[in-house]
Amino acid sequence: MTIGGKGVTAVKASTGNFFEDFALRQRFVHAPPRTLTVGDAALYKAIYGARFALQSSEPLACAMGHKTTPFDDLLVFHMAFGASVGDISLNAVANLGYAQVRLGKPLYPGATLSTSSEVIGLKENSDGKTGTVYVRTEALDGMDDEVVSFVRWVMVRKRDAASPPPQTTVPELQSVVSPASLVAPDGIDFKSPPPHEVGGALTWEDYEIGEKIDHIDGTTIEDAEHMMATRLYHNTARVHFNQFSEKQGRFGKRIVYGGHVISIARALSYNGLPTAFSICAINGGRHVGPVFAGDTIFAWTEILDKTTVPKASGLIMDRHDCGALRLRTVATKNLPCGDFPDRKDGAYNENVVLDLDYWAILPRR
Amino acid sequence: MTIGGKGVTAVKASTGNFFEDFALRQRFVHAPPRTLTVGDAALYKAIYGARFALQSSEPLACAMGHKTTPFDDLLVFHMAFGASVGDISLNAVANLGYAQVRLGKPLYPGATLSTSSEVIGLKENSDGKTGTVYVRTEALDGMDDEVVSFVRWVMVRKRDAASPPPQTTVPELQSVVSPASLVAPDGIDFKSPPPHEVGGALTWEDYEIGEKIDHIDGTTIEDAEHMMATRLYHNTARVHFNQFSEKQGRFGKRIVYGGHVISIARALSYNGLPTAFSICAINGGRHVGPVFAGDTIFAWTEILDKTTVPKASGLIMDRHDCGALRLRTVATKNLPCGDFPDRKDGAYNENVVLDLDYWAILPRR
Amino acid sequence: MTIGGKGVTAVKASTGNFFEDFALRQRFVHAPPRTLTVGDAALYKAIYGARFALQSSEPLACAMGHKTTPFDDLLVFHMAFGASVGDISLNAVANLGYAQVRLGKPLYPGATLSTSSEVIGLKENSDGKTGTVYVRTEALDGMDDEVVSFVRWVMVRKRDAASPPPQTTVPELQSVVSPASLVAPDGIDFKSPPPHEVGGALTWEDYEIGEKIDHIDGTTIEDAEHMMATRLYHNTARVHFNQFSEKQGRFGKRIVYGGHVISIARALSYNGLPTAFSICAINGGRHVGPVFAGDTIFAWTEILDKTTVPKASGLIMDRHDCGALRLRTVATKNLPCGDFPDRKDGAYNENVVLDLDYWAILPRR
Repeated sequence: MTIGGKGVTAVKASTGNFFEDFALRQRFVHAPPRTLTVGDAALYKAIYGARFALQSSEPLACAMGHKTTPFDDLLVFHMAFGASVGDISLNAVANLGYAQVRLGKPLYPGATLSTSSEVIGLKENSDGKTGTVYVRTEALDGMDDEVVSFVRWVMVRKRDAASPPPQTTVPELQSVVSPASLVAPDGIDFKSPPPHEVGGALTWEDYEIGEKIDHIDGTTIEDAEHMMATRLYHNTARVHFNQFSEKQGRFGKRIVYGGHVISIARALSYNGLPTAFSICAINGGRHVGPVFAGDTIFAWTEILDKTTVPKASGLIMDRHDCGALRLRTVATKNLPCGDFPDRKDGAYNENVVLDLDYWAILPRR
Repeated sequence: MTIGGKGVTAVKASTGNFFEDFALRQRFVHAPPRTLTVGDAALYKAIYGARFALQSSEPLACAMGHKTTPFDDLLVFHMAFGASVGDISLNAVANLGYAQVRLGKPLYPGATLSTSSEVIGLKENSDGKTGTVYVRTEALDGMDDEVVSFVRWVMVRKRDAASPPPQTTVPELQSVVSPASLVAPDGIDFKSPPPHEVGGALTWEDYEIGEKIDHIDGTTIEDAEHMMATRLYHNTARVHFNQFSEKQGRFGKRIVYGGHVISIARALSYNGLPTAFSICAINGGRHVGPVFAGDTIFAWTEILDKTTVPKASGLIMDRHDCGALRLRTVATKNLPCGDFPDRKDGAYNENVVLDLDYWAILPRR
Repeated sequence: MTIGGKGVTAVKASTGNFFEDFALRQRFVHAPPRTLTVGDAALYKAIYGARFALQSSEPLACAMGHKTTPFDDLLVFHMAFGASVGDISLNAVANLGYAQVRLGKPLYPGATLSTSSEVIGLKENSDGKTGTVYVRTEALDGMDDEVVSFVRWVMVRKRDAASPPPQTTVPELQSVVSPASLVAPDGIDFKSPPPHEVGGALTWEDYEIGEKIDHIDGTTIEDAEHMMATRLYHNTARVHFNQFSEKQGRFGKRIVYGGHVISIARALSYNGLPTAFSICAINGGRHVGPVFAGDTIFAWTEILDKTTVPKASGLIMDRHDCGALRLRTVATKNLPCGDFPDRKDGAYNENVVLDLDYWAILPRR
């Protein structure tokens, strides 16, 4: 592999950062800032088909207190994640995980996301060829309010196996965003939205811990779709775009961005969770297996927990207009989910591709 | 086929309505309302390539009296149709037909469509396993003005062959929307638009009854395109999206949404009908054969009738700025239309896929 | 080839102009005018993934003096080019070249392009079956300011080999747009944009004549993508859309619009040329070989020249906020560009598909 790195070339065109290029507390400001428009929202809808009412109907959004239709929370997450790829994970051997994804403020057309990442952990692997980099990524809107933040960790190649290892620092990560810290947008009233607008009368009260929901439908992925989405997010990870290289790779074909699968599963979950239209946190996600164009994605969800949501004021009081459900959405490829395919004795069913654990905000009656 | 319907699952995730679930005069309000933006218009253009001037040029639209560029009439139709699929035709064995499609008010970016359907007819089939459901669907904009309405009828599976049949009610349907009831948008002046802007000097006066026009060009369909379009319309009919299921189906592949073929044929028809930029009614359409990704669509049009258009005021007076043509656009797959492939002795040429009968409004000189 | 041209058909549906249909000084006004929106910009981003900061961040654009995020210069070029295809090159045997492409005024969402072409040269070929048509195409915005202009020449079929040849007129074309005539937008300040926003601290001063930059990454093309882009531009050249016809053609498949390849190479060039976010002129471009869906595009750039940019006022003074680089971007299919594949003894490396020569405006320190 001799691409890049020749003479003056290496100075101007980036081949990405290697493990040695990361230092604890180092901060990367990811270029460029990204202004989002209704064009991005329309593409998101065309590519995933999400039908959640809050992101579909401006009158409903305004009736709830929004100034106009907000973007889908996952679109915002993908934008922040994509912005970070060029600096953080271009030489990643593996995206090991992410956690403590906080989605706070609703974002509206015209807003600009500025994304940066701080290195919060480093650990060289015993093989001496790779290391794990932990970063906390956050995106601010034009008002410098945090819109999304998350921790992720990636296994990155060393440029030179002989370079000395950094001091090992591994951040403590909570496996679940604590209920007490969940944030529902201030000034937004979720209470009892019109059932005929939001797709049914189901509210937070109607879901029970332990309940499982098969979302029934399946969506087949095309290369043009996942590449268009991933480019929209400014995500430049090579495995998604370059069939010439991937032909010689492990799978012989382009790998679909994991976030693309999340958004497909989320869109499918409307059937069964129509009023779960806001995601306020992602506890973690495992991309259990690779997904390719031609695969058909199915999904099911389990209710892991339910909780009230504290008022933003900081008083020890709960909001009465909404509550949170901790959801585990499992996606498969080429396997309908009527039997809720899962892991057993630590091993996943071979068709499972995603195991996503997150908190959604739902209206209360 | 055991998808869905397990335990608590069935309560929350919909597997669609069966014949028994429909009652005469029952009204379905389809969720969610759908706010349309310039993002939707751009996608429509990218997917179909329509070049009609009214939907391409804001200055022309404004000069005619529009407040800005209106949406393509068919985009509005697809949005209303798509909204109704989840409640009406998810278990349809066949989309039997539609008629009396009225397209009234122009719709502009920022408008929100709210769509509902009323059951206006029911008839169980003699096999006892299916029945025909007739609905009248209408979509209102944010001002509660009707933007589009149509009747359609679908053959729907019964949940249980043993359920008793409903009383048979079959609505009377006109095969043609009567000229006297055609509506051209109030306050819009079609008269003599600049020929160099609209693609030629052809006006209503230039078309003769019986005339046939070959639209010459062909467009090949890709799966990514028809799925993106169909999702944009919130149309969730499974046959369009799920290759895993369709592989085992009758054709072994995903079927293209019939409306997608209509929009392709319509875009092709610009070549020969450049000033037919508004559709005010669809009399009916037959989707003669299935269309798949890889098929190349061609089209030709016959002028079936021409008429003046009454003033909206209700006075028995005609508008002098515009007239209507009744057009029959026939689309084929993989067959150029220089020979105007048609039906003969009741049987269609095997390459014909669409036979659409509609009224378009054209400028007068 | 008997498509079109039957009876009344020929009168209304255009089969395009033949060599005999062009006369010196003849002017074609291309219909329809095209209003551009943020929807077009979002599609452009999704299809090419361009990450240049000026077209990504409204706050940056405004800080530079723009009223909002301008469109990518190449999007504007494609729109003007596409508008001209129906009148000029529908019967082109070959697009022979283009030159003196001037990109002047920034264009913002809501602007409308009106495009026209004047015939500036005609020359029948010695075989008597074809001729070369030279046109100057220009697009104005709603203020009647020129936004883009270019000369192009195409080889067009004669309708009848027996028709007499026109008087031969071949315009003199400069192979390079002269530095003294380059225009950077008036009222826009390029000076020292924030490095963390534009993707690095590289400015005009940092590039040396003769320097070569490998842009490293590769992008695989899908049929759905290039067709959506090309339709967005209203470009109706048949070879891009009609697999039924192309199956029987020279290559057996649809040919990708050459401008699509330009935009892919340009998006790749961000890696190495992040602050080259404005193109003010294209000197010429050779589309060396055909490109098809499935091909993976790579690119490298050579700095051919660098110059200061005169002030718009006409005074013999240079701007101190920006300078111009003359760039030659070479794109290949299915060949990484670490070895800078090029032409040698007049013959191109067989994987080279594009050789583009243009002027970009870059910030100065």
